[in-house]
Amino acid sequence: MEDNSILYNYLLVLEEQQLSQYKFIGKRIARVDAIEKACGKAIFAGDLKFDKMLVGKVLRSPYAHAKIVNIDISEAKLLPGVKAILTAKDIPNNNKYNWANDAEVLASEKVRYIGDEVVILAAVNEDVAQKALELIRVEYEPLPVFTEYEQAMSSETERIHGDKPNNIAVKINVERGDIDKAFNDAKVIISNKYRIPTVHQSPIELNCAIAYFQMNKLTVYYGSQIYHQLKMQIAKIFNLREKNVVIKAVEIGGAFGSRNEQIVPILAAALALHTEHPVKIEITREEEFVAARPAMDMDIELSIATDEKGNFMGKKVYITASDGAYTSFGDAVLFIAAFRADTLYRFKNVKILAHAVYLNKPPTSAYRGFGSPQMHFAQESLIDELAERLNMDPTELRLKNFIHPGDISIHGYQINSCGIAECMKKAKELSDWQTKKQNKTFGTGIGVAALVHASGSRAGAPWFSGGSSTIIVDMFGGINVYVGESELGQGARTVFSQICAEELCCEIEDINVVIGNTDMTSFSWGTHGSKLTHILGKAVMIASRNVRDQIMDFAKKYLKINELNLEDSVFKDKKGNRLATFLEVVKRGCEENNGASFIGIGSYDTGAIVPDDGFGNVAPAYLFGVQIAEVSVNPSTGKIIVDKITSVHDVGKAINPQMIEGQVEGGVVQGLGMGLMEQLVTDRSGVVYNNSFLEYKLPTIYEIPKIQVGIVESIEPNGPYGAKGVGEPPIISVTPAIANAVYNAVGIRIREFPITPTRLHKLLNKKRVLYFKKKGN
Amino acid sequence: MEDNSILYNYLLVLEEQQLSQYKFIGKRIARVDAIEKACGKAIFAGDLKFDKMLVGKVLRSPYAHAKIVNIDISEAKLLPGVKAILTAKDIPNNNKYNWANDAEVLASEKVRYIGDEVVILAAVNEDVAQKALELIRVEYEPLPVFTEYEQAMSSETERIHGDKPNNIAVKINVERGDIDKAFNDAKVIISNKYRIPTVHQSPIELNCAIAYFQMNKLTVYYGSQIYHQLKMQIAKIFNLREKNVVIKAVEIGGAFGSRNEQIVPILAAALALHTEHPVKIEITREEEFVAARPAMDMDIELSIATDEKGNFMGKKVYITASDGAYTSFGDAVLFIAAFRADTLYRFKNVKILAHAVYLNKPPTSAYRGFGSPQMHFAQESLIDELAERLNMDPTELRLKNFIHPGDISIHGYQINSCGIAECMKKAKELSDWQTKKQNKTFGTGIGVAALVHASGSRAGAPWFSGGSSTIIVDMFGGINVYVGESELGQGARTVFSQICAEELCCEIEDINVVIGNTDMTSFSWGTHGSKLTHILGKAVMIASRNVRDQIMDFAKKYLKINELNLEDSVFKDKKGNRLATFLEVVKRGCEENNGASFIGIGSYDTGAIVPDDGFGNVAPAYLFGVQIAEVSVNPSTGKIIVDKITSVHDVGKAINPQMIEGQVEGGVVQGLGMGLMEQLVTDRSGVVYNNSFLEYKLPTIYEIPKIQVGIVESIEPNGPYGAKGVGEPPIISVTPAIANAVYNAVGIRIREFPITPTRLHKLLNKKRVLYFKKKGN
Repeated sequence: MEDNSILYNYLLVLEEQQLSQYKFIGKRIARVDAIEKACGKAIFAGDLKFDKMLVGKVLRSPYAHAKIVNIDISEAKLLPGVKAILTAKDIPNNNKYNWANDAEVLASEKVRYIGDEVVILAAVNEDVAQKALELIRVEYEPLPVFTEYEQAMSSETERIHGDKPNNIAVKINVERGDIDKAFNDAKVIISNKYRIPTVHQSPIELNCAIAYFQMNKLTVYYGSQIYHQLKMQIAKIFNLREKNVVIKAVEIGGAFGSRNEQIVPILAAALALHTEHPVKIEITREEEFVAARPAMDMDIELSIATDEKGNFMGKKVYITASDGAYTSFGDAVLFIAAFRADTLYRFKNVKILAHAVYLNKPPTSAYRGFGSPQMHFAQESLIDELAERLNMDPTELRLKNFIHPGDISIHGYQINSCGIAECMKKAKELSDWQTKKQNKTFGTGIGVAALVHASGSRAGAPWFSGGSSTIIVDMFGGINVYVGESELGQGARTVFSQICAEELCCEIEDINVVIGNTDMTSFSWGTHGSKLTHILGKAVMIASRNVRDQIMDFAKKYLKINELNLEDSVFKDKKGNRLATFLEVVKRGCEENNGASFIGIGSYDTGAIVPDDGFGNVAPAYLFGVQIAEVSVNPSTGKIIVDKITSVHDVGKAINPQMIEGQVEGGVVQGLGMGLMEQLVTDRSGVVYNNSFLEYKLPTIYEIPKIQVGIVESIEPNGPYGAKGVGEPPIISVTPAIANAVYNAVGIRIREFPITPTRLHKLLNKKRVLYFKKKGN
Repeated sequence: MEDNSILYNYLLVLEEQQLSQYKFIGKRIARVDAIEKACGKAIFAGDLKFDKMLVGKVLRSPYAHAKIVNIDISEAKLLPGVKAILTAKDIPNNNKYNWANDAEVLASEKVRYIGDEVVILAAVNEDVAQKALELIRVEYEPLPVFTEYEQAMSSETERIHGDKPNNIAVKINVERGDIDKAFNDAKVIISNKYRIPTVHQSPIELNCAIAYFQMNKLTVYYGSQIYHQLKMQIAKIFNLREKNVVIKAVEIGGAFGSRNEQIVPILAAALALHTEHPVKIEITREEEFVAARPAMDMDIELSIATDEKGNFMGKKVYITASDGAYTSFGDAVLFIAAFRADTLYRFKNVKILAHAVYLNKPPTSAYRGFGSPQMHFAQESLIDELAERLNMDPTELRLKNFIHPGDISIHGYQINSCGIAECMKKAKELSDWQTKKQNKTFGTGIGVAALVHASGSRAGAPWFSGGSSTIIVDMFGGINVYVGESELGQGARTVFSQICAEELCCEIEDINVVIGNTDMTSFSWGTHGSKLTHILGKAVMIASRNVRDQIMDFAKKYLKINELNLEDSVFKDKKGNRLATFLEVVKRGCEENNGASFIGIGSYDTGAIVPDDGFGNVAPAYLFGVQIAEVSVNPSTGKIIVDKITSVHDVGKAINPQMIEGQVEGGVVQGLGMGLMEQLVTDRSGVVYNNSFLEYKLPTIYEIPKIQVGIVESIEPNGPYGAKGVGEPPIISVTPAIANAVYNAVGIRIREFPITPTRLHKLLNKKRVLYFKKKGN
């Protein structure tokens, strides 16, 4: 058996699981930052103030599509207290804004959506800044506005971006296997169209950044998901050396994918560089809604072909999605929507045709699940219809087709751990599926949906996969874990503290996790793709073992003994006699090295690849789960009450069950909002209608059902202690579970969310009319 | 030959010197922080402001010695805007203030000098804080005041500190060789008494500290000379864990020894912990004069015995010094005054009796040279008298007796490099000594004095000697040098940048030196004893080589070549062909390690020991120098104009000649101030008379003579590239050189500085009277 084989790793981890009595891993450890956050002491960007700090503001386009004819800042410039007014020409590399190269820091010749950044300014206070905004005169020449897929795709001459015919930003066209044969040979073919609207991540905290330029160093405080990339981006845009740019992490009041995009800190940086004052930009809720990159809306047309026993033979998928005005992470979202869900089942023949289209609407981007919630809504809804057609229980149809551990999926994903069957079993038990199905009455329903996602998908950029961490143990026994990633509220600090405390046999409170500061941490790709616990957790584990080995080696030398155990911060001999404390040994070790701290480095290579044409193992592991929704529908009004959601996830190994429950509850609530009430509405002129929490409806405590969380531990050989991620899955497949439960309750299929009472009521009425018509016949 | 022998090291360094064409070492590189400092952009503690920051103030004792009967804060507490008023009982470990255990954070039962800290408070602004101070009523019961040595030492019953009979804080009583025999056998014995007053370091910047306590972490901004010890001290006083205390370095507007003592940040910390607001304390110039630990005043009685040829046979020294109210670094200063100067010559028999006495005056402490300027004034003045008695040129008498390379001095100091004879030769050349001596006229004079000091004296605390540094090279080629020491203005950042750039074959501007932040740097003892270039510089050199080796190893693997050169940030093969840039290789190396940076650790053990009874090798190397002063004296008024000072120093190897010149010029000016005009005057009731720059006279541009700097490179085997320190020496022996020149000009010996016109005029008058009397006879 080879040392590096998956099986060998798997056995190693299993053995470790059996041998180990973990002290912190798998325990319900309270979040290390709980008190600070609960007591309002945690520091967010908005909490920071600096001496002589200016207020930055953005003048945005009032047109969805227009040429910029002239910008007149002369009057605004004269207003006392205005320190800088910048337009596109003041930004050194204005066009180096994004990977897709289709956006600018400030719009130069054209604006492409209502909200596009045109001018920024800094002034001594809010009032002056606001007044100055109003004194700027921008002359526009309106252009045709595209807000619908077909309208945009059918336009040959008018383009939102000059080099993109038919306004197509991204196109995926892939076929694997023999799709025609599969559909020809099939006994059952089922097809439907699904429509997914734009929803907003709606973090509590508004985008806020503070930048200052002092002593030749640009410092930016911002709660980002990708600190090191932000550093690179700023260096590139402003012709600075990376070493002269530092991003300092602050707490983040919710990101959910929206902090991958980061215009606000770049604008703050521009103003700070020009004024040499600290500049703070905090956008409003209205700006957040239109300009902070909500989720991608999609039309999905899906067909599945099976044999007579329900074995999946083929799948065809057509996606048309809105990139909005620019490509943010829309390409990645489209990619994941197109490919990811195919790995849930043993598909052998698949055809995918997907387009992301430019529209004169807010640019769309990542939202928890990166396209998976969109595609799972279609796929898991359609499979429910298929089960009915085949007269099978939808859980049985899925179980028959689920992918297995050891499989390589149709897109080349290597499945190691896979607890999807156990998830289904547990979800059915926890929800009492069988009984509920049998005893159901009209108006109550139960629905199921399964899901797959990646545990740390490889970032699109091709440099490397994996992550690293540094651990410094200083002379005072202070244990500092440096990680170049973000604490988004997901509990990264706590998980890393658990891992490091486990490995160094110390207490949680001995650990100090330093998150994100780019001057102190090594390069990391960013906090997305449910990767933190798995990838960085493993790097922290390796770094902990590395520094522990160094300390252990010194301890043996110092204590003149060959066999030593470290337990609860005490070194003991084989017989369990106390020899010295961890602190004593570390102190002595540093002293003997002239004060130098012990430094451990952890580097974990996931082995994941950048898929070629969508084919290849994109992640070190895959995540599986099952959601079951129970609903009560009032057939007269269409009002839907979700009574319970059972949410079961294969997390590999639960590092902290309590935090997993927190993640699941949060994700389920977001999925529920998406399914029942959320939608960012843009009209045909590109105006976003509901850009406030009065008009954009989020779930409140009244709509939140009982959420029962189930955890399946499949022990992932690549993950730390067998763990993999769980950040995104809970949001995925909540909408189809609800849609399927609604069908189960009142016999109405809704293929467009949110499933609002209005929409349902209309369909119920239509059904009633048809029923009476039929009866009348 | 053993690998570790001094000689072997010496030859190694010599070989390196000959082989190397240094690119940065030895070059006149501009200070890396010059522009920021010259343009007022460097950030000092006083520049920092934080939101909701409070102003902290100190209520000080108006009595030089008194019992505290009662403190009534009731009225002050009621003043709106007062956030905290603290007395001794509010400080958890109030008595853990200093190493000597004789001082408290706030005086609890007694006050011991006018200025003693009694109450601190924090308020919303300066006005409220000041008003609150005035509302605090402290009732004192006055005690007898001691301001004179004999008065204090003769008091059996009244003690300033209860456990110290005769008010003696520190006593040193050491005899080596056979002092009685030496003096019995001697042909010439010369004795005199010298009086050295308290002078003040007078940094431009006032003591200022800002502390805040957030998220369970106490952060303190302060320009300290000993960041890590301050962290320890604060943790101990406030029962915090060291890991929860971070000291962040700010620029320092001059320290010169005075920032070893650090009450201000501790008081700010106390108020921050109590209020949970940021608190800033900035003391006034008046407070700085009395409470910020000026230099130690001393009475020195000195005798030297020689044979008829001027060979030194023995030396007796009696020192009585003022510790002031508490022991700050007075013990170290006394120790250095007592022992250090003996290593300048080949003394074989020495007797030392030294006392530091408690007085009800400002506590004294370290000032550039740590006691060496005091003792050298006595020794080098007396040797001048001795030369006259022996009818020898004073330079010849010294040359006859100087210590030699390879010697072990009477106190056990191992002399490796020693360029004292070369210094004397060069100083004589540069000042044209011979000609000036021969052609002198009444009223003009030339005087010489030599000096010795240690290059990185071992700190009193016994843990370890040496220093460490960490260098992190990140994926963007950013090179970060972490050093837990201080940039005092001495140019540490520049020297470390030169060393690191030399070793990594890159440019100065590629280097980012991170100074002092205790969260980012490894433990360091503190920046004193002329140690930075030598000890930390060597650690940086080792760390640079360590990280370079790692990068080189990777480069060989990556470029698939066994022999590589790194030149000007480019890797080349043996033939000089360009293969890859440093950045390319580093980027690739980090990528292949999942983003992990290259980390180099440098640890340098000086091998110095904590001397037992003053005996033992206290430093890795010793510094030598010669000062020659030329003066013009107006015999009618006593006015002295110093025309020129020639200052020649054995620096081992000049890393940056320009910065050495800066150090020398600064030190010489301070020595000049000490010799001619400075003195902090305390009256018998303990009142400091001249606590402002109106009354305390510092040299201005008008008094500064031509300063000619000479550099001797003796190549120190222990130092980096042969370098040793130069921080303190320039201030040492300026005063005796001036005193000797004054004697040479007008025949008046002044054994007490400052040599003011008044003092000289009085003695000139006295001499004239004697002359006329003699003539009259």
